[in-house]
Amino acid sequence: MVELTPNSSYSLTIRFQGPNRAGMLASVTQAIAQAGGSLGQIDLIEQTRRVSLREITVDASSSEHAETLTQVVKSLPDIKVIRVYDRTFQIHQGGKISVEAKIAMANQADLAMAYTPGVGRICNAIAKDPSEVYRLTVKGNMVAIVTDGSAVLGLGNLGPEAALPVMEGKAMLFKGFAGVDAFPICLNTQDVDEIVQAVKHIAPVFGGVNLEDIAAPRCFEIESRLRKELNIPVFHDDQHGTAIVTLAALRNALRVVNKSLESIRIVINGAGAAGLAIAQLLQRAGATQILICDSRGIVSTNRTDLNTQKKAFAVEEAGTLVDAMRGADVFLGVSAPGVLSREMVQTMAPDSIVFAMANPIPEIQPELIVDNAAVIATGRSDYPNQINNVLAFPGIFRGALDCRAREMTMSMYLEAADAIASLVSPAELDREHIIPSVFDDRVATAVSSAVQKAARKDGVATR
Amino acid sequence: MVELTPNSSYSLTIRFQGPNRAGMLASVTQAIAQAGGSLGQIDLIEQTRRVSLREITVDASSSEHAETLTQVVKSLPDIKVIRVYDRTFQIHQGGKISVEAKIAMANQADLAMAYTPGVGRICNAIAKDPSEVYRLTVKGNMVAIVTDGSAVLGLGNLGPEAALPVMEGKAMLFKGFAGVDAFPICLNTQDVDEIVQAVKHIAPVFGGVNLEDIAAPRCFEIESRLRKELNIPVFHDDQHGTAIVTLAALRNALRVVNKSLESIRIVINGAGAAGLAIAQLLQRAGATQILICDSRGIVSTNRTDLNTQKKAFAVEEAGTLVDAMRGADVFLGVSAPGVLSREMVQTMAPDSIVFAMANPIPEIQPELIVDNAAVIATGRSDYPNQINNVLAFPGIFRGALDCRAREMTMSMYLEAADAIASLVSPAELDREHIIPSVFDDRVATAVSSAVQKAARKDGVATR
Repeated sequence: MVELTPNSSYSLTIRFQGPNRAGMLASVTQAIAQAGGSLGQIDLIEQTRRVSLREITVDASSSEHAETLTQVVKSLPDIKVIRVYDRTFQIHQGGKISVEAKIAMANQADLAMAYTPGVGRICNAIAKDPSEVYRLTVKGNMVAIVTDGSAVLGLGNLGPEAALPVMEGKAMLFKGFAGVDAFPICLNTQDVDEIVQAVKHIAPVFGGVNLEDIAAPRCFEIESRLRKELNIPVFHDDQHGTAIVTLAALRNALRVVNKSLESIRIVINGAGAAGLAIAQLLQRAGATQILICDSRGIVSTNRTDLNTQKKAFAVEEAGTLVDAMRGADVFLGVSAPGVLSREMVQTMAPDSIVFAMANPIPEIQPELIVDNAAVIATGRSDYPNQINNVLAFPGIFRGALDCRAREMTMSMYLEAADAIASLVSPAELDREHIIPSVFDDRVATAVSSAVQKAARKDGVATR
Repeated sequence: MVELTPNSSYSLTIRFQGPNRAGMLASVTQAIAQAGGSLGQIDLIEQTRRVSLREITVDASSSEHAETLTQVVKSLPDIKVIRVYDRTFQIHQGGKISVEAKIAMANQADLAMAYTPGVGRICNAIAKDPSEVYRLTVKGNMVAIVTDGSAVLGLGNLGPEAALPVMEGKAMLFKGFAGVDAFPICLNTQDVDEIVQAVKHIAPVFGGVNLEDIAAPRCFEIESRLRKELNIPVFHDDQHGTAIVTLAALRNALRVVNKSLESIRIVINGAGAAGLAIAQLLQRAGATQILICDSRGIVSTNRTDLNTQKKAFAVEEAGTLVDAMRGADVFLGVSAPGVLSREMVQTMAPDSIVFAMANPIPEIQPELIVDNAAVIATGRSDYPNQINNVLAFPGIFRGALDCRAREMTMSMYLEAADAIASLVSPAELDREHIIPSVFDDRVATAVSSAVQKAARKDGVATR
């Protein structure tokens, strides 16, 4: 089991009471520190001459660890734990998004304009000229976040209800990072035809569709059919979002080691939605030697167990991940915790690049290979070089909506990747800084501009 | 053609410039008044020694009238019209609702709790105990406003895109009047099976379904199937919302004239969704003599052209609306502009009650029968006694969501109607005050409480 550092996803607020005397707080903080908890905010809630009531925020590294920390505080002499809040559960209470009115409804005149009878004039205007729906309704800024709950994060097929918290989070990111309104559509079916039908049926309200957490290979067919059958852009974030941000980071990593995309040997571990989309985008960007590995080894023309999507990337070489890694310049992991060993990294070409993007536990802990790889990236925020889709999807849709793109194209993805990469200036660029921070507020704007430029060039922008 | 009074649904803002001298503004206001425009706000935007720039808000009675008013101002000597805004179109720009984050996403810790990896714990909790979706997501407070665009207001089959402005308006009202989050689902199909399927597929995100502007008789089958096949409450507002508010107003109107529901003859004109639902609810409330009329006259057992829903209310009496009205105590119109004549009202029983609810132009203008009917109500805000669904649906869903009702029941509707009626105190009750104002902020709370009480009694409340 890989040791995890304490982090905010296991954050507790412990409210406790103790005698008001020197050393009491120190006894609590010391006990927590010794048990491996990471202390945050400490608030004094109430104090009398005899007792102090405090609230302390502590990050743990797992649910079990959080439980241990609680027990440690409870067992301290003289300390009485009043209540323990799990901060993550607390902020999810009642959900994370709301639907709000943009205009006040304070009197009859407001009602008469925004609702009946005034709204009838707006309805008639749209019926007369259907393109007016973009100007006179939410459609022009509204994205459907569609899932069937079949591949929720790395957790598997949890179903549509359990997927909803992720979709709400995504809606928050769309709004927070790019001003895009987005709404979760969690479908109560995992049948391809039914999913395609349902999305087509709800499409009138939306200016774009973001597919999310739908298992491969089903996701490929769903995306490709929706692309054909809808006249609004469709984007499967697990595929293309990941591919765009990976390409952006790889471009800069290659600058650090002074290698070119065309000449390097790339191993992609994981042949699901993300792995295959990365392969496709890298190929379009100029990569020539790509080996994809799945749990049975290299995706090779020898194999008889490949689906259509994998077949398209099958190579003549055969073998295991160990074989693939020998002499490789780049490892891109979108697979599972701990599947990469230090030994495998040691067999890579000089100045190797390792992106261990499995979430939340990477294919290899960066500290194990810090002397073996030239550039290391993960999906985590507690290591340098975080590869996070939030760098791409908000700006992608901002751009697609703003130029009213009919569809998403590969050049939009390529341009988006370059735009993200370009935000790391030559002066800033080094092995621990190949990608901008997710909180760099230039990102969405840069991506949006790049996407619009590409859309116009491809002739898919309609304004 | 019935003359309409100027109203906010045809409201203009005219920006104009003129010499800064006495009488200039008066010339504009006088010209507008003479042309029948109703003046609102007048703002001085800028003034120099030579010129004044002003903005003036004017209500017109129709689009043509608005055009006339603009021309009248434009033709004044020395006045230069800079720009004319149509206020209704202006407030609809970009739509009327937005999706907002409830919590900040300012740093990595926020991201780690609200999104990955923290959100994974919430997903797992819901996968383990599906009822947690109500506590940990938006579902418990989220209503889908579902339409196929087949009967948009009184405008007809305009399709899903043109229906969207109404659904957005409805979402605003849900939020503004009862704190319910609601989202428009405008379906790109008018097939009953497909509509039922689509709603079932998107149901996981929603705690309730409000059907809206779906044509009869299709709406009856859709509602009845969804009621059976979903475990969340389903409510067709055009039917039950109208029926609830009509019953509430009728209860108080009968108090004014001192008649009882059981003993009166009621004519319902209009045998669509609203008319049939009103008949059903009145019957459940104790009414014994109900005649429904459609465009072919009384819905009679003699007729061979009736659908199942109409058949259920067919009476042995036959004839036209004129025949039906003779001796009637109550006329409830959910039909078309101007179909009721003064003569017909004169043949009603003494102390007659006329609800002319066709929108925006009633079955008869109230001023024509003010001496003939004891109580008159319309759907309009510019006459006394406005019968408006907004008195019902926000509180209905507030109540159903709060007690987590599995379904809607007739007793919930009856109790809601009584709750609305009871807000007009005996001291306030008179022929021009039978129903509370839509801006009476006690309404939603009263309806919600009544609905919850009825839901518990019916055993459909799950908490």
